[in-house]
Amino acid sequence: MTRQRLGVCYYPEHWPQSRWSEDAAMMKETGLSFVRIGEFAWSRLEPSEGAYRFEWLSRAVDTLHRAGLKVVLGTPTATPPKWLVDKMPEMAALDANGRSRKFGSRRHYCFSHEGYAQECDRIVEHLARAFGAHPAIAAWQTDNEYGCHDTVLSYSPAALQAFRRWCEAKYRSIETLNEAWGNVFWSMEYRSFDAIELPNLTVTEANPSHLMDFQRFSSDQVVAFNRRQAQIIRRHAPDAMILHNFMGAFVDFDHYALSDDLDIAAWDSYPLGFLERSSHDDDFKLRYMRVGDPDFQAFHHDLYRACGRRGWQVMEQQPGAVNWAPWNPAPAKGAVRLWTFEAFAAGAEAVSYFRWRQAPFAQEQMHEGLLLPNAAPNEAYHDVAHISKELDALNAQVETARAPVALIFDYESAWAWRIEPQGQDFSYFDLVMCFYRALRRAGLSVDVVPPTAAAIADRTLIIVPALFAPSYDFAEALAKSGGTVLLGPRAGSKTGDFQIAADLPPGVLRRIIDIRVKRVESLRPGARITLSGHGAFVRWRECLTLGEGVAPEFTSEDGETALARSDSVFYLAGWPDEELLTNMLRRVFLVAGISTLDLPEDIRVRDNGAMRYIFNYGATATDISALVAEATLLIGERLLESCGVAAFRRRD
Amino acid sequence: MTRQRLGVCYYPEHWPQSRWSEDAAMMKETGLSFVRIGEFAWSRLEPSEGAYRFEWLSRAVDTLHRAGLKVVLGTPTATPPKWLVDKMPEMAALDANGRSRKFGSRRHYCFSHEGYAQECDRIVEHLARAFGAHPAIAAWQTDNEYGCHDTVLSYSPAALQAFRRWCEAKYRSIETLNEAWGNVFWSMEYRSFDAIELPNLTVTEANPSHLMDFQRFSSDQVVAFNRRQAQIIRRHAPDAMILHNFMGAFVDFDHYALSDDLDIAAWDSYPLGFLERSSHDDDFKLRYMRVGDPDFQAFHHDLYRACGRRGWQVMEQQPGAVNWAPWNPAPAKGAVRLWTFEAFAAGAEAVSYFRWRQAPFAQEQMHEGLLLPNAAPNEAYHDVAHISKELDALNAQVETARAPVALIFDYESAWAWRIEPQGQDFSYFDLVMCFYRALRRAGLSVDVVPPTAAAIADRTLIIVPALFAPSYDFAEALAKSGGTVLLGPRAGSKTGDFQIAADLPPGVLRRIIDIRVKRVESLRPGARITLSGHGAFVRWRECLTLGEGVAPEFTSEDGETALARSDSVFYLAGWPDEELLTNMLRRVFLVAGISTLDLPEDIRVRDNGAMRYIFNYGATATDISALVAEATLLIGERLLESCGVAAFRRRD
Amino acid sequence: MTRQRLGVCYYPEHWPQSRWSEDAAMMKETGLSFVRIGEFAWSRLEPSEGAYRFEWLSRAVDTLHRAGLKVVLGTPTATPPKWLVDKMPEMAALDANGRSRKFGSRRHYCFSHEGYAQECDRIVEHLARAFGAHPAIAAWQTDNEYGCHDTVLSYSPAALQAFRRWCEAKYRSIETLNEAWGNVFWSMEYRSFDAIELPNLTVTEANPSHLMDFQRFSSDQVVAFNRRQAQIIRRHAPDAMILHNFMGAFVDFDHYALSDDLDIAAWDSYPLGFLERSSHDDDFKLRYMRVGDPDFQAFHHDLYRACGRRGWQVMEQQPGAVNWAPWNPAPAKGAVRLWTFEAFAAGAEAVSYFRWRQAPFAQEQMHEGLLLPNAAPNEAYHDVAHISKELDALNAQVETARAPVALIFDYESAWAWRIEPQGQDFSYFDLVMCFYRALRRAGLSVDVVPPTAAAIADRTLIIVPALFAPSYDFAEALAKSGGTVLLGPRAGSKTGDFQIAADLPPGVLRRIIDIRVKRVESLRPGARITLSGHGAFVRWRECLTLGEGVAPEFTSEDGETALARSDSVFYLAGWPDEELLTNMLRRVFLVAGISTLDLPEDIRVRDNGAMRYIFNYGATATDISALVAEATLLIGERLLESCGVAAFRRRD
Ligand SMILES: [Zn+2]
Ligand SMILES: [Zn+2]
Ligand SMILES: [Zn+2]
Repeated sequence: MTRQRLGVCYYPEHWPQSRWSEDAAMMKETGLSFVRIGEFAWSRLEPSEGAYRFEWLSRAVDTLHRAGLKVVLGTPTATPPKWLVDKMPEMAALDANGRSRKFGSRRHYCFSHEGYAQECDRIVEHLARAFGAHPAIAAWQTDNEYGCHDTVLSYSPAALQAFRRWCEAKYRSIETLNEAWGNVFWSMEYRSFDAIELPNLTVTEANPSHLMDFQRFSSDQVVAFNRRQAQIIRRHAPDAMILHNFMGAFVDFDHYALSDDLDIAAWDSYPLGFLERSSHDDDFKLRYMRVGDPDFQAFHHDLYRACGRRGWQVMEQQPGAVNWAPWNPAPAKGAVRLWTFEAFAAGAEAVSYFRWRQAPFAQEQMHEGLLLPNAAPNEAYHDVAHISKELDALNAQVETARAPVALIFDYESAWAWRIEPQGQDFSYFDLVMCFYRALRRAGLSVDVVPPTAAAIADRTLIIVPALFAPSYDFAEALAKSGGTVLLGPRAGSKTGDFQIAADLPPGVLRRIIDIRVKRVESLRPGARITLSGHGAFVRWRECLTLGEGVAPEFTSEDGETALARSDSVFYLAGWPDEELLTNMLRRVFLVAGISTLDLPEDIRVRDNGAMRYIFNYGATATDISALVAEATLLIGERLLESCGVAAFRRRD
Repeated sequence: MTRQRLGVCYYPEHWPQSRWSEDAAMMKETGLSFVRIGEFAWSRLEPSEGAYRFEWLSRAVDTLHRAGLKVVLGTPTATPPKWLVDKMPEMAALDANGRSRKFGSRRHYCFSHEGYAQECDRIVEHLARAFGAHPAIAAWQTDNEYGCHDTVLSYSPAALQAFRRWCEAKYRSIETLNEAWGNVFWSMEYRSFDAIELPNLTVTEANPSHLMDFQRFSSDQVVAFNRRQAQIIRRHAPDAMILHNFMGAFVDFDHYALSDDLDIAAWDSYPLGFLERSSHDDDFKLRYMRVGDPDFQAFHHDLYRACGRRGWQVMEQQPGAVNWAPWNPAPAKGAVRLWTFEAFAAGAEAVSYFRWRQAPFAQEQMHEGLLLPNAAPNEAYHDVAHISKELDALNAQVETARAPVALIFDYESAWAWRIEPQGQDFSYFDLVMCFYRALRRAGLSVDVVPPTAAAIADRTLIIVPALFAPSYDFAEALAKSGGTVLLGPRAGSKTGDFQIAADLPPGVLRRIIDIRVKRVESLRPGARITLSGHGAFVRWRECLTLGEGVAPEFTSEDGETALARSDSVFYLAGWPDEELLTNMLRRVFLVAGISTLDLPEDIRVRDNGAMRYIFNYGATATDISALVAEATLLIGERLLESCGVAAFRRRD
Repeated sequence: MTRQRLGVCYYPEHWPQSRWSEDAAMMKETGLSFVRIGEFAWSRLEPSEGAYRFEWLSRAVDTLHRAGLKVVLGTPTATPPKWLVDKMPEMAALDANGRSRKFGSRRHYCFSHEGYAQECDRIVEHLARAFGAHPAIAAWQTDNEYGCHDTVLSYSPAALQAFRRWCEAKYRSIETLNEAWGNVFWSMEYRSFDAIELPNLTVTEANPSHLMDFQRFSSDQVVAFNRRQAQIIRRHAPDAMILHNFMGAFVDFDHYALSDDLDIAAWDSYPLGFLERSSHDDDFKLRYMRVGDPDFQAFHHDLYRACGRRGWQVMEQQPGAVNWAPWNPAPAKGAVRLWTFEAFAAGAEAVSYFRWRQAPFAQEQMHEGLLLPNAAPNEAYHDVAHISKELDALNAQVETARAPVALIFDYESAWAWRIEPQGQDFSYFDLVMCFYRALRRAGLSVDVVPPTAAAIADRTLIIVPALFAPSYDFAEALAKSGGTVLLGPRAGSKTGDFQIAADLPPGVLRRIIDIRVKRVESLRPGARITLSGHGAFVRWRECLTLGEGVAPEFTSEDGETALARSDSVFYLAGWPDEELLTNMLRRVFLVAGISTLDLPEDIRVRDNGAMRYIFNYGATATDISALVAEATLLIGERLLESCGVAAFRRRD
């Protein structure tokens, strides 16, 4: 088993070389094990074309190495230098309005530009050759936050050409494509692949099938871009881990697919910034402004755990106020520790803080670090020292076991309902989060997984909200799973071509529950379809006809089946409000034989193997004795303070 | 007299030919009389340049014919195929930002592009030659929903050249144009027609005279585009009706002018979608989410009746949930029938549903039809069968008589106040709707008409809100009309050149009431100019000086004349709130000698000749005995259910 | 001393020549002394290239002269005629999206285009030669409202080239620039000045140092553009005043710097339009909708007084409803007089109304004037006659003395916090206005001044909120000033390169108070950092460490120093709500030995030398006896009516 470790992100190129060894010593002293470096340094690694300057990086790596630190080395491809952009200006992405996205910040490249991809091959090859065998380098990070700043979709000529070839490879004949997209509608038929356009700047919305394929293509381009780097690195550093740092609430490419080329799925966790940017209402944002949404980080831990083939971690943990949200408050006292243990409770290999020292210049100068700009320790520096000691005391290991509950999260579904929300507030991500939150408030540890047979094997309960176009194989796997299954609204409603499922939704899922969705409607805020005493549907509801063996469990006051059941398969015919969600899940848990915990509102629980963690996201100390029972707390108190963390070993 | 009929919109090209005859049989059986087809099928009619493929359309028409159905054949010019766009890419419209509006949905053409117009001539000529004599084809529809998706205004080079020639034809000398536009202001003077620019991308707002002429020009281009098709069709199908399907709340071109080339003015009625997109507040939208605004459809019926030279109809009636509004709820039980009879009550020749069968693919896959995607009957299918029988029982005919009340609706006025709202919420359409709603709530049947002498002849009451620039002839006609006249705020305030009327507003209307508007002001939400006990002005108010023979009927608390009167002519000096509107109209009705009905809040009444219809837009059953009195109900009950329709013949 | 005078803006080119002498006579009769003309008349002065037509202007000037009026002659460079734009289309500015800003309104030029600048030299030279010696012409206005309609920043090729040269001149070596901007961050390093890009259309936000230098450059371009005109005019009209008309709440260029080339700083005061466009909430806007923000005009008077080397004035005073705000109500009765005396109370040389007569055509046709479009006197015409007589009675002179309180207002700071607000609602202008409002509500007359040693000499109290990057010299001057100093949040937090101040904020200001800002945070609406009983911080707060000699005066409930003090220097560590602002200033006034007035809510006071003015911005008459005491009112009553003005001479 793997010890859980702490790390930090560091930019030696920002500071005089004379400072490096002192930084390294402080890192070591405060309990950090590894350091990520290099990922934005192209202009220093190759100041002009072909003039490689790796010496400083060698010295930096050596300095860290000598201090006993491991290194994660980043490829610098998120920030091509100006000379490169000037050499091939057409490497820029074009935005949906057709404007070239210029040099002057980062991520100024189009994933489909072959010339740029070759430049990346070249710099990665040189770096991998130079550092692949360095004993300090434990892992390589490819690029940085793929897709950040809305960079997955590009409407460039390079993207257009590549998309045409992608369509050709997928459909082989243009007739097949026309059929799949339903291009007879509005005379949108193409006569050759070279006539295909990108789906931007159309007079009204483009064909959803067209949009979906463009989204799939764009995701594939990111995966392919990453794969080239991974393959080069593996050649030169066969023993190093390869990772990438994903983001939160970000679905623009398929993270499962990209992760096939990674060893470690890392992600960048900014609880306060993410909360500010979320769709939560002002009251919620105000309430949790200093701790973040109690379920948001956990959701991503559980999701990226499913991505990482050999592990997962937090690469950038918010250590103080950041600079990029609409408002940027400081974390509550204790929040950094709370977030760190939440990750470890979910089985993270490591939590790494961003960044070591606040830079006094450029775009992120207001982003706090472990050190202040003047090198004095900031609050989080002390937090880290404390956490490090606690980790040692706990002898914390990566131990996460398979959870009995699997919640399906699917990138195509996220794209589908963004393309066709049908009601303005139908957000796939928000809907999945509703279910996740309810499960977590019931004290359950959850695996967030893709819709594959493997992912749902041996589960007690499988929850499938709004799954766009399940494969026949997945429907089969559900049928044979033996677990209780809860299907959500819109599940199975389309084919992979983005057409309405044959003989009405839920299409292939009718295999497991014999219903037909004869009508759907979206509901404006304030409109509610009430179920006497059980809550209500909001935003979305469906009307079903029930086939053989299907009975209504809940019925709406206007007489429609709200929750249908066929043995251990349920279908929920709308977007549940909190009350309905709770009542409905209670029924489902009962059938599934799942027992839950009765948690105070802001308390959350997570098991990492036998280790149970309890977290207090509330503003006041809360008695958790009932949850601890006879166990001995290894950290924390039974009256768990605000932002407090408690841990104990379960005996069962 | 004409029997009132039902129809449907159908896309044979979406379905296998083997299905057509069954569809036709079902149509006939459910009581439909006619079918609209063909209007988006260019890529199937001419898959490559000059390769006409009309056989399938012939077969489809024949199939319908054999089933005893009539056909409305659409020209496919709203959806030029890709090969045509590739042949002449400059046929695209440019949006106000100068971006080309691309292929990939529909309406991707610029009305000013002569090359595209010739292609349209060609395809229409071929179609008209092929089908002009077919006995099934009762009518031709030109194009589809001109202007939908904001396509009237185009800023293309073709539009620029055409606009210059339009200006030259109108003004003859550039000095005359400079004078008319007041171009001395800000040195905007042109030295030749070829120096004129389109009024987009200016540093701050363009000259309102410039904007107005560009809007007039753009409207004229639509009219001319339509006329070319109409003339070709008439040559080959001299006995067929020519129609076009207009939209709701849409004023981007002059529908009166375009209708001079039509026989039938049709329109597309989507009560729920229109409500969602309207400027009503959330409470109103929630209240009527399943029936629509009780007055919106009726307004358009009354408007398009004034457009159709030989009749009018609904071409696309919403039959279920649609896909294009921010939220898309399902209609209330009974709502489709309610809407259908509302149209017949207003004298529609026909109501046609959109569409026969929900398509499982492309942009409108979430738009319900009479059949579900799997061909099973949807709710509206049954509604239609029911309605059809009731129509037979009623022996329903087009009987509408001239209404005693005329409400002026003028497209130039809509453009004018959009160009120069002066207060952010001054909407001409909303203001006219205020008056319309108040008239309808008083139980009156209204004609919505253009500002012409003919339209106001023999009226008891003529209401003229915010009429931009009345002609001298219209002012004369008002003076001689003999009816009571109510002028609204901003009426007569400008000349046709978009200059302030000579010697102050109301300009030529001073001919009928001797006042001068010495000051106007717009009022932010919450600001009210109160009239003790009579209500208040909101949004807009004017200060008047009164001339000979004019007396204040209402006065504001700050001492200004709120309602001026000179014999049977009234001038209302602001935007009335509901209370003021009611009180003021009561006074006006009294002078006009108009008697009104006392209707419960959600009840509406409409006479079609001697047939009186009563509608219940409310959520609860309502007693309408007082309205029915001694008459015998032909349909409906005296306790009129929610969404209920009652009808009886008046004896007077 | 200078008599305070009235004037008006006039457009003889809009009216027939036959009308001019009657206009002039009416102007004289109503008490006006001078007339501004000519500033938009280029197309009449030079209808085609080189064809100068100055005769009409001569006749207009002579007509005014003969009537005893002085003239301010404007250069017409804000409105280049169409032939000039057609000759050099690349003179257009490009907006941030890269779109050319077209002809058709005004200000359609890029400040960096040398070709256009030469055309301006030429027309100004011709005008100055023709009219420089005319005895009627007392002053010249350069251009009109520089920067109006967002025209300071241009992203044109001309701007790009000029910016590169500007950077080169500033930094000399590209390494120095890279260092100053911190371009090592994200590999943004440039290898030559010719590689520099403009900071628009970047993928995410550009480097703040880059944005700041681009803003400085853009401001410099405006200053240089103005200087060329000023130098030409001075050569030909050495005795005339040179002025420009600034705007309100407008900070896009450095008005202090531009004013070095002016004699008179004029500004255009539209109290109602500015209120509508402000960030005030709806209640405030509704409350003051007819009088404007009681402190907004006064602030600008006090600011532009610091700009004018030889005086300042109002060039365009709103006389009625305008046309350009979201809503445009009419002023309250008395408001025009109130605004006029507010300017004189602050020491204005003149107040000039915009415009003489409402034009019936073009963009501003809904903007009221002293005359109605039909030449009848409008309300303000009568107001002016009245004001003129009162001015005579008062023998009103420019007398303003140096105020004991100086409030620092700095354009770079406005740019800095717009570039890096860090919290969405952190507006420098709003913050300074908070302080200004509080000072004025305490009855104090204030000088708004730049951060220079000269400006703060001999002040009792110096208030320095959020000063971006104070120079060492200014810090020195503060240290030696002898006055009480109040530093506000973010003061001294950056270097001029837009980097965090060395050894933490407040950087060079630590010279006067030994603190360090170790953390800052922005607070969403509703979040408050409370100080028991003293109010709260909103929007922004900082955490300090206190050095030698510094003690906390106020402490927040969470234990941080909210107001630090070191002798007579205070540092306020956040954005104060109204309660905290009042409590904190009370403490500061006490230390400074400043006595204040106890004013009713809507009453304001301003001293012009010995003359004290009292204004009532409220809706009801208010007793001001306590403020007048034994003095004799020269105008106004002790029960001061709504919109009332009172004046008396203080004896102290
Ligand atoms: Zn990041
Ligand atoms: Zn339609
Ligand atoms: Zn102005």
